[in-house]
Amino acid sequence: MAGNTFGNRFRITTYGESHGRALGVIIDGCPAGIDLDEAVIQKELDRRRPGAHASDSDGTERDPKLNPATTARKEADECEILSGVFERKTTGTPISIIVRNTDQISSDYGDIKTKFRPGHADYPFYEKYGIRDYRGGGRSSGRETIGRVAAGAIARQILGTLGITVRAWTSEAAGIVCKTFDEAEIENNAMRACDGDAAAKMLDRVIELKAAGDSAGGIISCQVTGLPPGLGEPVFDKLDARIAQAVLSIGAIKGIEFGAGFEAARMAGSENNDPMRRDPETGKTEFLTNNAGGVLGGLSTGADLVFRAAVKPVSSISREQKTVDTSGNDCTISVHGRHDVCLCPRIVPVIEAMTALTIVDLYLVNRTATLS
Amino acid sequence: MAGNTFGNRFRITTYGESHGRALGVIIDGCPAGIDLDEAVIQKELDRRRPGAHASDSDGTERDPKLNPATTARKEADECEILSGVFERKTTGTPISIIVRNTDQISSDYGDIKTKFRPGHADYPFYEKYGIRDYRGGGRSSGRETIGRVAAGAIARQILGTLGITVRAWTSEAAGIVCKTFDEAEIENNAMRACDGDAAAKMLDRVIELKAAGDSAGGIISCQVTGLPPGLGEPVFDKLDARIAQAVLSIGAIKGIEFGAGFEAARMAGSENNDPMRRDPETGKTEFLTNNAGGVLGGLSTGADLVFRAAVKPVSSISREQKTVDTSGNDCTISVHGRHDVCLCPRIVPVIEAMTALTIVDLYLVNRTATLS
Amino acid sequence: MAGNTFGNRFRITTYGESHGRALGVIIDGCPAGIDLDEAVIQKELDRRRPGAHASDSDGTERDPKLNPATTARKEADECEILSGVFERKTTGTPISIIVRNTDQISSDYGDIKTKFRPGHADYPFYEKYGIRDYRGGGRSSGRETIGRVAAGAIARQILGTLGITVRAWTSEAAGIVCKTFDEAEIENNAMRACDGDAAAKMLDRVIELKAAGDSAGGIISCQVTGLPPGLGEPVFDKLDARIAQAVLSIGAIKGIEFGAGFEAARMAGSENNDPMRRDPETGKTEFLTNNAGGVLGGLSTGADLVFRAAVKPVSSISREQKTVDTSGNDCTISVHGRHDVCLCPRIVPVIEAMTALTIVDLYLVNRTATLS
Amino acid sequence: MAGNTFGNRFRITTYGESHGRALGVIIDGCPAGIDLDEAVIQKELDRRRPGAHASDSDGTERDPKLNPATTARKEADECEILSGVFERKTTGTPISIIVRNTDQISSDYGDIKTKFRPGHADYPFYEKYGIRDYRGGGRSSGRETIGRVAAGAIARQILGTLGITVRAWTSEAAGIVCKTFDEAEIENNAMRACDGDAAAKMLDRVIELKAAGDSAGGIISCQVTGLPPGLGEPVFDKLDARIAQAVLSIGAIKGIEFGAGFEAARMAGSENNDPMRRDPETGKTEFLTNNAGGVLGGLSTGADLVFRAAVKPVSSISREQKTVDTSGNDCTISVHGRHDVCLCPRIVPVIEAMTALTIVDLYLVNRTATLS
Repeated sequence: MAGNTFGNRFRITTYGESHGRALGVIIDGCPAGIDLDEAVIQKELDRRRPGAHASDSDGTERDPKLNPATTARKEADECEILSGVFERKTTGTPISIIVRNTDQISSDYGDIKTKFRPGHADYPFYEKYGIRDYRGGGRSSGRETIGRVAAGAIARQILGTLGITVRAWTSEAAGIVCKTFDEAEIENNAMRACDGDAAAKMLDRVIELKAAGDSAGGIISCQVTGLPPGLGEPVFDKLDARIAQAVLSIGAIKGIEFGAGFEAARMAGSENNDPMRRDPETGKTEFLTNNAGGVLGGLSTGADLVFRAAVKPVSSISREQKTVDTSGNDCTISVHGRHDVCLCPRIVPVIEAMTALTIVDLYLVNRTATLS
Repeated sequence: MAGNTFGNRFRITTYGESHGRALGVIIDGCPAGIDLDEAVIQKELDRRRPGAHASDSDGTERDPKLNPATTARKEADECEILSGVFERKTTGTPISIIVRNTDQISSDYGDIKTKFRPGHADYPFYEKYGIRDYRGGGRSSGRETIGRVAAGAIARQILGTLGITVRAWTSEAAGIVCKTFDEAEIENNAMRACDGDAAAKMLDRVIELKAAGDSAGGIISCQVTGLPPGLGEPVFDKLDARIAQAVLSIGAIKGIEFGAGFEAARMAGSENNDPMRRDPETGKTEFLTNNAGGVLGGLSTGADLVFRAAVKPVSSISREQKTVDTSGNDCTISVHGRHDVCLCPRIVPVIEAMTALTIVDLYLVNRTATLS
Repeated sequence: MAGNTFGNRFRITTYGESHGRALGVIIDGCPAGIDLDEAVIQKELDRRRPGAHASDSDGTERDPKLNPATTARKEADECEILSGVFERKTTGTPISIIVRNTDQISSDYGDIKTKFRPGHADYPFYEKYGIRDYRGGGRSSGRETIGRVAAGAIARQILGTLGITVRAWTSEAAGIVCKTFDEAEIENNAMRACDGDAAAKMLDRVIELKAAGDSAGGIISCQVTGLPPGLGEPVFDKLDARIAQAVLSIGAIKGIEFGAGFEAARMAGSENNDPMRRDPETGKTEFLTNNAGGVLGGLSTGADLVFRAAVKPVSSISREQKTVDTSGNDCTISVHGRHDVCLCPRIVPVIEAMTALTIVDLYLVNRTATLS
Repeated sequence: MAGNTFGNRFRITTYGESHGRALGVIIDGCPAGIDLDEAVIQKELDRRRPGAHASDSDGTERDPKLNPATTARKEADECEILSGVFERKTTGTPISIIVRNTDQISSDYGDIKTKFRPGHADYPFYEKYGIRDYRGGGRSSGRETIGRVAAGAIARQILGTLGITVRAWTSEAAGIVCKTFDEAEIENNAMRACDGDAAAKMLDRVIELKAAGDSAGGIISCQVTGLPPGLGEPVFDKLDARIAQAVLSIGAIKGIEFGAGFEAARMAGSENNDPMRRDPETGKTEFLTNNAGGVLGGLSTGADLVFRAAVKPVSSISREQKTVDTSGNDCTISVHGRHDVCLCPRIVPVIEAMTALTIVDLYLVNRTATLS
């Protein structure tokens, strides 16, 4: 595959760079007859924007000082559906969604025309394509996730009709770990953390780092409930393998683990295996523990799908760093401009989108596992 | 894609179950004119077998008691090339490799005909396909990796001609962590660990667990040297995303992290960014540290590609476990038979194979990044 | 693949219906560094429009009465490039091109809300998706070719740099057959016929049919010069097989034949085989005849690629026809509105586009046939 | 896609050359639970063999003089299923089928080591891969169709359970045209012609040509009954586009036309459109004529799918022909050995196989057109 397409049946192709005219996505293979609530797409895009969280979902721009973790750039990001919907239902034809770029202050980036920013994709992109697109991150910019989130909103709506829910949150950031889980907290604080007290400490730390011209990373947890057992296509399109690809394709993600994850490496089999039993009330098969994270042999088990993703600290920091220029000579660089300090709150909706896209695709493919 | 195919240009399709007649792979898209040393394929398959390590690579069956970590099943696994090679060079046509199943003692498995083994894929496979293939793991068996390793041997040979080397080893197992790195140790001990002292302790622990009817997990590290910068296809076929899919598709793998991985989540940007400089001797660009693990923006940077994978403990243990049967009723199960105790040594060559396959595929695709 | 994507390396995904907001295409896998002359894209789109031919290529709307073969609908079809180009060169990132729909007179179609038009896709689309999108042809409308032609313009530019030229023309229409070939005639008459006298007769016949509320079909010939030998990927992605898919995917095409085509069925082998010889001047291998049409074993031979495609007569005619309605009951229908009478002149640029797209894709894939 | 794979959900990958050790196919994506009558696979392979027709389907080798159209080479072609079937039902895992090459007389081909045979793929293969595999046709040999026919047998069985039948026959060969249609004749004569008298004349002509060291071509017709409406994936994976690719990928095919085909080019719209009506007995929608050949807008209409394919005359003839050698110098060649004279009877089962494979694939994909 050319790299800008994801999925086999529910297939998305995205386009757009940070400083081009527009970004967007085409969704191909969306079943016909789905109620498409276009406002839901805009709402998900709003969650993705800098300075936004739950109470902003009506589109109001919050004072970015209220989210010191994210950039002060205003990104209006209004979406428009160009095709694939008729009388509020999907037609089965490709759905194209466009978002025009409006806030592009070139002077934010002009001084890095010939230098490679450490931690960014500048250097390998230059080696690959022979082009230094110095306007922000170009295609490697986080704005590229706009297309993913727009498509993910449709995927989430489809999953909703199937009783499947995808939810992610920040479980650790800037060295602070969440101790409790309260779902209502997630959209209630600027870190999208599941623990309000931890969120406050995270923001304190973020403000310190920002003042120091530095940045922070974190860990995002994701949980999918309501999955039927059997989704996934062995051996290479296993559910966990495809989600790993989907999540690692998001910028700044450096690792993923399912269920007990790296801790499973230290367990004995008798501790790690999840026993099964028959639920006396419903008669259904259930797992007594979930070290597997909801996946066995690459197929969903019916238990919650659970995974965690590692987010590296933002690479654009104003501290001076050693680097080379496009001629290969030593130099230093300070990356100024309006940058995020910690990406976790903005990546939470992106992880939800990619997870939903993967599951809808495997759900559709699974409809041909048998002819019944 | 149907799930048994991996890769876009260098594309493999595998087949075979643990108790079917044969297993194998078709490799499509292998460039013509490659010297194919068929003995190298057999050597890689031998590394994958139970009870084998470096000194066994001439095909001699070692006394399995010398590798208590792996099963006592004899698996001869002799490969035969059926097509795609002429006068010792690849022709550009599909290369088909077959391995006949020879050691299939059904009585090893007969008692689990109607019960689902905890930690295995039995239950979700049954839900997906409506079939309980009780002969071993069927398609979810580790023997399915035979096709991957055979194809990976060809991929590694191609990478060798390009100056690219893939190497993996056990860095942790049964709770014991390697403290030193000595490449010569890897094929010199039964755990394929990089530290001989740690290897001895690992085997002691493995023998204890085996006697207790239990099993162990571990962590495998992998390093690729000699990569040119720029391999990877943003945004969805990024190098790390594709390797994550490749590695998570291997049975028993529950997590992957690149470079600093989950530790990066706890670093500040100033610590995590890798500075660059001009190597005064060669004039080439190099990285002063490698927290990125050799990947930025999803493209190789030219630094070593470095990742770690989490291996869960073997699910087949003889201890009694709670489970349900195919009618959904409670029961217990003891899984007897000749099973591995710790999978790390046998997964090392599989991880090398999948990594080599991913890189060759992205290398070929990268030849069309520009027309020069 | 989901059906709206074409190509493996040079991959296009199109979207848009006749009466939606916009149509367009994303091109993924275009090599970086290609000079992109955006005016060339607009010029190709102009060729595709109704009432346009060579002398209109500056965009001026000609009086549609001068092309009685095509519809009187005004289709401005101005394209805009949204991404993938920087400082007039392709960046290697996806190129998105959009064309807004401007001329949509719903009343043209309102009377067919519940009836299936004979010869159109209405009935099978309704059976497949459960939706009657009565606004024109919806996704089955000829306007869907806008995305193909825009992408094809880029493909043709790339081929131009490689010395490969794609050219198509009408060789037969409305029962009149071209007797001579004059390249300059093609863009000089409203039928895009290669023979000026024949073109005049074709138009006479078309005017008669139009007055009778009827329509005509024809045959389009295509020739590609400058192909290197060896393009094509046996066995399923052969050059002729991929072009056959590409061309048959164009609405109204009912057949394709390469070289001697259906006439080859009646030849003896000694007549049909093309002898080869060494060109005494250049030293290159050449074919003395070209019954093969430039393809042998599915690979280009270096001789001109030659094929012909059959175009059925336009299905929208104002004569009364028997049909059924969406409840399955008998009824009759007259399709009024501003419709083409013969599609050949408008399909010529679409066939050129699809052929160029197929060849560029196979050209890129061929760069990995060997590692030299 | 690498070129040796066909299909998206029901996906086949073939391998094997004329003079390699074995040929075969992997079928991925076959639904689980299908009754697999292995004898049916062997029967289809027997139909494909030289010198065989219906009365040979029990495997008896007929005296090749009884089929002068085909080669005297003995090709036993016994198939073996290696995986994917358990207790006579498909498991949903990949089905691998192997056929060992047994009859390989190298001396048949030895004299063409350095010369390119006119009409064959030798020259372009050499240009593409840099290899002259002079052992027969190598991968371009007709034996490559063994994998297709084996997989097609499974596809046809699945279609049978859905009430869909695929049938092809020779409608013209060696200049003789069938005048009547009698289904029982097809497997009753050596040409697989639908008209017994015509078959006799065809064979007379074939014998003459053979004596003259020459060969003949023909036309094969194919009809699919029982298709539901709506199969096909616009716009690029239309039913006719995918069948065109499938059929043109068969060696020696030079053209394809659906329904009225090239004749449609000469019709008026009022003649070509197929009117619809409500069948008074069944209440179902039916077409009064079938110029569309069962496809509109790229989707099946429910009417019979009807197409014809042009088969060029066999390229291997013993008459002397002008050609060049691998150094590019002029020379002549006589291709001796045991060759077919007319390929039509052997291609009939291959066309049936490819058509069945395409339809099963589109049938499975169509199960996700809506969520109902």
